[in-house]
Amino acid sequence: MNYADRLAKAIEEKGTPAVVGLDPRIGSIPEEIRSRHGDDRAGAAAAVFEFNRRVIDVVAPLVPAVKPNLAFHEAFGWEGYKAFLDTVAHAKEMGLLVIADAKRGDIGSTAEAYAESLFGVAGADAVTLSPWLGTDSLKPFFERMHDGKGCYLLVKTSNPSSSDLQDLPLGGGRTVFHQAATLVSAWGQPHIGRKGLSSVGAVVGATFPEQAAALRAAMPTTPFLLPGYGAQGAKGEMLRRAFGAGGAGAVVNSSRGIIFAYQKNETEEGWEEAVRQAALAMRADLAAAVPEGGFRE
Amino acid sequence: MNYADRLAKAIEEKGTPAVVGLDPRIGSIPEEIRSRHGDDRAGAAAAVFEFNRRVIDVVAPLVPAVKPNLAFHEAFGWEGYKAFLDTVAHAKEMGLLVIADAKRGDIGSTAEAYAESLFGVAGADAVTLSPWLGTDSLKPFFERMHDGKGCYLLVKTSNPSSSDLQDLPLGGGRTVFHQAATLVSAWGQPHIGRKGLSSVGAVVGATFPEQAAALRAAMPTTPFLLPGYGAQGAKGEMLRRAFGAGGAGAVVNSSRGIIFAYQKNETEEGWEEAVRQAALAMRADLAAAVPEGGFRE
Repeated sequence: MNYADRLAKAIEEKGTPAVVGLDPRIGSIPEEIRSRHGDDRAGAAAAVFEFNRRVIDVVAPLVPAVKPNLAFHEAFGWEGYKAFLDTVAHAKEMGLLVIADAKRGDIGSTAEAYAESLFGVAGADAVTLSPWLGTDSLKPFFERMHDGKGCYLLVKTSNPSSSDLQDLPLGGGRTVFHQAATLVSAWGQPHIGRKGLSSVGAVVGATFPEQAAALRAAMPTTPFLLPGYGAQGAKGEMLRRAFGAGGAGAVVNSSRGIIFAYQKNETEEGWEEAVRQAALAMRADLAAAVPEGGFRE
Repeated sequence: MNYADRLAKAIEEKGTPAVVGLDPRIGSIPEEIRSRHGDDRAGAAAAVFEFNRRVIDVVAPLVPAVKPNLAFHEAFGWEGYKAFLDTVAHAKEMGLLVIADAKRGDIGSTAEAYAESLFGVAGADAVTLSPWLGTDSLKPFFERMHDGKGCYLLVKTSNPSSSDLQDLPLGGGRTVFHQAATLVSAWGQPHIGRKGLSSVGAVVGATFPEQAAALRAAMPTTPFLLPGYGAQGAKGEMLRRAFGAGGAGAVVNSSRGIIFAYQKNETEEGWEEAVRQAALAMRADLAAAVPEGGFRE
């Protein structure tokens, strides 16, 4: 089964398009965990993995996928990189899809090595990639779509400076990100699954609802990964238009708003209960905002 | 001393702007090395490190810097990532500058984690980065320019599909990569060293000599990293214009043309002698082609 269909199935089973981002910033990991591991890099990496593992155990029944970001793992050297690999393995054991948030982008033969790293070694189901280097830098990833893998290209990112290059005007009201969208849509055509959506998706910042709505209309067969929910300010209602009237495929990511919910919502039941409550609140928020639960029937 | 000045000093001492790219594709590592390590991932990672270490020992007297690409290390999991870290450490012990070819690009707080990973943990002197996400995704790296670190932004890459987004026309004869160049030049202004060059550089494919010449004129204070020499087809003479009439700062990278020279130039003295011969040939080629040795007086 191709990735788009695997994802649609997981969204249906869990009843939500919510994805939990695993951005394990060491300073925000509960003291309870940090205090039991050493202060050195190996200790930090062990704390990162324990934290990820316990977050995964809480959210596994509630969401279809998790999205670990490699940066917060690589920050602790090879021990941290191992924590990333162990995290992917544990998430898969718990029945979750894994989107490796790597944002890689390199020329053809090097891209092949990254594809091997993320899909082959780590075993991720999907990855985030930069389109800046163009088609030949992405082919090694596209080839693995035939093995059930997926990817999300950075079309319009959620950060304020995404305008620097992505919003440059090309004339006729079009911008560079519109052209990126056209490319991503075309790249995805050979990889459309039974539900009418491709395994080649787009990262579209939920912080820019106007652009997200325009892109949704321009890319009807492209599934979206919408970051920026929660801590970055995007709310469920803002996402409505990004899903489109028919509830086309998209997933919505929240990272620190869920995994570090205990910092804002102190509960006597501990930080894991805060994670569970935050995930439930996001599910409810999305269910109210997103037509037909956010997935194509 | 800032990175631009440290690099200029190293180029002067070694008498060449040649950089050796460490892309240790496992299938091309000499059988002599591979046969002494296991067939599993740990064995491959050990072979990768031994190969890198021995290449470094050969080229250390001949070039100012090496450029390990993370992809070929991450392809062997955490053991491969450790091989990357050990490679950087060994290169630094041998007195070389290290440009970590990571091509990372993520939003602000995540970029900070990558900066910590590449500069803090790995100890690289410079890194390659994608400009696709704009200013705020780069600030954590720019802040470390004050600690002697440097970076190279992907402005016009050496691969054929770099035209997909980088060459899009903005009107008035300008393209997206011209605007990327304008941004990179501006980002570099606060980081100009005593030699008049910035620690914020640009990756400009040596495979596109026309564009490289135009960019050289547009970015007089930006040092270039020119990939694509050798195996990708760019020759020393094609680079002349990228350096500019005054011999402004640039480094030229060759990867497989040097490290796997033994495959094209079998010598009885073994693969390391082939590496040495290829590095010497590149030095001579650049000395003939590049005005004033490729560095600003």
